[in-house]
Amino acid sequence: MSAEKRSAYRDAGVDIDAQDAALNRVKELARATFTSGVESEIGSFGGLFRPDLDGVSEPVLVASADGVGTKMLVAAQAGDLTSVGRDLVNHCVNDILVQGAKPLFFLDYIAGGRLDPEQVVDLVSGVAAACREAGCALLGGETAEMPGVYRDGDYDLVGFVVGLVERGAVLDARRVRAGDLLLGLPSSGLHTNGYTLARSLVLDRLGLALDDIWEEVDPDRTVGQILLEPHRSYLADLRPLLGSEALHAVAHVTGGGLTDNLPRILPEGCRAVIDRTRWQVPRLFSALQDSGQVTTEEMFRVFNMGIGMVLVIEDAAAEAVLTDLRRGGLEGHRIGRVAEGRRGVAYEPALTGAGG
Amino acid sequence: MSAEKRSAYRDAGVDIDAQDAALNRVKELARATFTSGVESEIGSFGGLFRPDLDGVSEPVLVASADGVGTKMLVAAQAGDLTSVGRDLVNHCVNDILVQGAKPLFFLDYIAGGRLDPEQVVDLVSGVAAACREAGCALLGGETAEMPGVYRDGDYDLVGFVVGLVERGAVLDARRVRAGDLLLGLPSSGLHTNGYTLARSLVLDRLGLALDDIWEEVDPDRTVGQILLEPHRSYLADLRPLLGSEALHAVAHVTGGGLTDNLPRILPEGCRAVIDRTRWQVPRLFSALQDSGQVTTEEMFRVFNMGIGMVLVIEDAAAEAVLTDLRRGGLEGHRIGRVAEGRRGVAYEPALTGAGG
Repeated sequence: MSAEKRSAYRDAGVDIDAQDAALNRVKELARATFTSGVESEIGSFGGLFRPDLDGVSEPVLVASADGVGTKMLVAAQAGDLTSVGRDLVNHCVNDILVQGAKPLFFLDYIAGGRLDPEQVVDLVSGVAAACREAGCALLGGETAEMPGVYRDGDYDLVGFVVGLVERGAVLDARRVRAGDLLLGLPSSGLHTNGYTLARSLVLDRLGLALDDIWEEVDPDRTVGQILLEPHRSYLADLRPLLGSEALHAVAHVTGGGLTDNLPRILPEGCRAVIDRTRWQVPRLFSALQDSGQVTTEEMFRVFNMGIGMVLVIEDAAAEAVLTDLRRGGLEGHRIGRVAEGRRGVAYEPALTGAGG
Repeated sequence: MSAEKRSAYRDAGVDIDAQDAALNRVKELARATFTSGVESEIGSFGGLFRPDLDGVSEPVLVASADGVGTKMLVAAQAGDLTSVGRDLVNHCVNDILVQGAKPLFFLDYIAGGRLDPEQVVDLVSGVAAACREAGCALLGGETAEMPGVYRDGDYDLVGFVVGLVERGAVLDARRVRAGDLLLGLPSSGLHTNGYTLARSLVLDRLGLALDDIWEEVDPDRTVGQILLEPHRSYLADLRPLLGSEALHAVAHVTGGGLTDNLPRILPEGCRAVIDRTRWQVPRLFSALQDSGQVTTEEMFRVFNMGIGMVLVIEDAAAEAVLTDLRRGGLEGHRIGRVAEGRRGVAYEPALTGAGG
């Protein structure tokens, strides 16, 4: 018998020691995100966080869970797993930001057929970097090696964020009324939605490879770079506006596009009327549509079409808000109005017309 | 041209309408878990929860993320997806319970190659049932259809829980001292750990099928029923003990077994000495070990060996605690003591002796 340690568990496909090695490096990354609220060490059963409730009379916690969808497959294929961690955090932070909340802490879950320690560290490094930028502690997480569920080299990355908002400052449909202006904020790319369709159009229909230059969209970047552009965080842009009376609601344009996400912040009896001439749909989206037989209607339900966030504001405040956003480097667009009518989104010109 | 709606997205493998149908049924299940703290409807971007802070002077949030690991594969193969939802919630609730926290809310994430609406509802029904039992609101969640990452029929199920504890009542290693008693609470089965090895031993080495009777372990239940026995929640049992001075710490025996989990609640200079003669390791574990060449050392690092939770208590309180637990139907065991020494776990008799 050799002195080599026998491990039936390893034979069955789980390598606990390799997981431990990655976990140690992950701990360092997480610790660098710790804010003053963190009361636990990474490695305790649950992460402890003491929220600063000074000046908050009725604290409301806002929580959201999300994944990065099949953007992960693009990342894996491109051999760049660092940016999807940013996608995940920014997506989650945006999801609670639209209700007026600032993030307190984040937890991640990484699962794969086999966890390559380097790849896990790559994933977490993106998560940790985006957490630091958002002032949000990476409080804990879980890694799971699940041979049989995931193939070797395939991962899923799931995130969970908790934020805090004063009850009186919660944003939702209640303040929205007919006549309000819709301000669209530019997206940085596909963000985290529509990748199953995008991959099919780009890789199969157009026959492009991830390291090809996609001339039609951007002569300076590869297909992989264009598709992996991280989901933009709007936290720094919107933070100064939170609590303002003029800001009535915010919608994050995620899966379902403008068509499905705008109704989430409309009260009964109100519809959104979008003037499609008010912004230039980025070439990425027109290239995707041109590549296959996708209707314009579906494009607006699957992709963000260049608008990552929509603010519902009082008309009178528009100029000041646009100026503030511009100072931060973000060019907003007056993309439409709230009008009376059946809850839903109307487009002008109609989606079934041009290109549909 | 027919009137049939074209859907390039569906062609690419994502069925948004089927997801929507499941989401509606899931909403009903979630709504039935809502407690008085919930301030949002399912479907808002983030879930809103207003914690009841009456009588809490320094509120600390405790958060944990977890999955059910490859127990999911057993569930899928057995065609019973309802119990893994319970596993997930109970695992997460136990993870924050050991720090003294009672759960406030829970979020789930369900991903698969293709989401079968019935199966998603099965998964969520288990999650919702366990949430209701724990008095924990199912505040939100996410479903993701990810063809290419998961195979059709394969799912991953991830959970996030947030609980609350008074800062002065946080349980961790700080109160633990040499001389403390270790009380072991019985597990209900494998709980949620060790399934990759267990599946390999049972299905491959022993050649059993999930609907076989596993005579050696339990003549009245199938292999599938034995393996899918839900992870026990200790919330109701431990809730009366929380805040008691006599309770110094609690460890949840999850991945890593007693060997890796007990050190998480030991201060520097303390070790746990486990007397293996003080409880009967259930036949399930001995059958697993006998089936393959698994050392006893590894058994104690992969499986819970019949002990799902360990309480560290003052010796003088033991009889009263055991009596209280017994009234609730739980038979605890004095399984060892905290002693001075290098942080770690010592077993008597040693693991490398008998059977190792």
